[in-house]
Amino acid sequence: MRLRLDLSYDGTAFRGWATQPRLRTVQGEVESALATILRRDTVPQLTCAGRTDAGVHARGQVAHVDLDDVDPVALERRLRRLLPADIALRGLSVAPPGFDARFSALQRRYVYRLCDAPAGPDPLARGSVVGWARPLDAAAMDAAASHLLGEHDFAAFCKRREGATTIRTLLELRTDRRGDLLETTVRADAFCHSMVRSLMGALVAVGEGRFAPEWSSEILAGAARDARVKVMPAHGLVLEEVVYPDDEGLAARALESRRRRDE
Amino acid sequence: MRLRLDLSYDGTAFRGWATQPRLRTVQGEVESALATILRRDTVPQLTCAGRTDAGVHARGQVAHVDLDDVDPVALERRLRRLLPADIALRGLSVAPPGFDARFSALQRRYVYRLCDAPAGPDPLARGSVVGWARPLDAAAMDAAASHLLGEHDFAAFCKRREGATTIRTLLELRTDRRGDLLETTVRADAFCHSMVRSLMGALVAVGEGRFAPEWSSEILAGAARDARVKVMPAHGLVLEEVVYPDDEGLAARALESRRRRDE
Repeated sequence: MRLRLDLSYDGTAFRGWATQPRLRTVQGEVESALATILRRDTVPQLTCAGRTDAGVHARGQVAHVDLDDVDPVALERRLRRLLPADIALRGLSVAPPGFDARFSALQRRYVYRLCDAPAGPDPLARGSVVGWARPLDAAAMDAAASHLLGEHDFAAFCKRREGATTIRTLLELRTDRRGDLLETTVRADAFCHSMVRSLMGALVAVGEGRFAPEWSSEILAGAARDARVKVMPAHGLVLEEVVYPDDEGLAARALESRRRRDE
Repeated sequence: MRLRLDLSYDGTAFRGWATQPRLRTVQGEVESALATILRRDTVPQLTCAGRTDAGVHARGQVAHVDLDDVDPVALERRLRRLLPADIALRGLSVAPPGFDARFSALQRRYVYRLCDAPAGPDPLARGSVVGWARPLDAAAMDAAASHLLGEHDFAAFCKRREGATTIRTLLELRTDRRGDLLETTVRADAFCHSMVRSLMGALVAVGEGRFAPEWSSEILAGAARDARVKVMPAHGLVLEEVVYPDDEGLAARALESRRRRDE
């Protein structure tokens, strides 16, 4: 039986999503809570939509796990009681046929938050808003962003991994200013490692006036990591949402991938 | 020279506003930063609009301090560099004639935040939102609140202090639900000690359905602490705003109080 877990977390005290020996991770905490409830030494691994880095937060993380013979309602209630306060289980349900938290995801939406007030960010939000000492020009950031939309090789903004593609489709990259708070929404089919924080590094360089908005297309065309593009701090980033096909779409996709495998 | 300080703080790691020996307090941190900058062992005490309890937060705290021969612009910049991350100095300016952070204040506005989602509050907001396991009826809470508006003796909701009046004018008490988040706005000319958190205790008892909305007027009429009214946890409470008269109004009030003293 495949279960879907909807999770939110404050990434501050985690070394990211993925289990690592002797480090506190979100996946590790959830799997160990499951093991406690099911009275097993180990449980099947969770698969998630976005493997967030150390310090990155989530309001809309989605994961799945395959377990036999469990009552989802009871399991949800017991997990909620057992999980630490920096992880919230928003929902646990039986996944629809064909669902895979990682491979079924159509889009991931992240928001990066900056505050350029001289006083710094609201102390109550400082765990998820990055204070920026210099004023930022949101319109210039938006102009820089417009050159990056669409399908491109984002190698310039990715940590290179042997053999992995860096071609992605950037569906949205938009900065909204509300007072001193700048919220940049980033939406794509998928992201390479550190891509969102590198895109933010380029936007901020433009927002500070150090480069013209067109500079972003120059960087993109370079197709290689550029030292002038900084990777922004992790704690400004929140995985807000993962979009999946509806149940019919999932079933159709599952059927198609099976057909392709059989050919 | 009287200076006005506009302050925000995350109350989590403070034992409240007021200086206490060997405890970390907001007043203590600001005064010690001032002493460091001015190279003195002690500085004149700060006076604030709302002496928040341990764990209570502020986005709109206002304080004043009397200092001679300081450059407000330079002092603001240096204070911002010296204050810890859980205190933000939103502004520092020369106060208008007649200004007193405590006695000039016309209104204080607080917001108390509760979340009744089964999953608990958003982990990123859990420092300032109280999770509530049972569902709350915001309309019933509003009905209970309506009986408390206006000028009353709020002794039932106050920690009694020898000789101090408990008569206050409650100008607003309103609960808005946004999804699983309940925001209760409380506005009055002034508050007695623990009054907002006691009012919230009464509203939550009604919101849970344990008492009818009219119960609040019964409690109020009792004019004495009632064990059935719980003082709600501190971390849901934020001092959002303090309202002062404009500069002309301040000057007129200062003149009038001087005249009264002379009579």
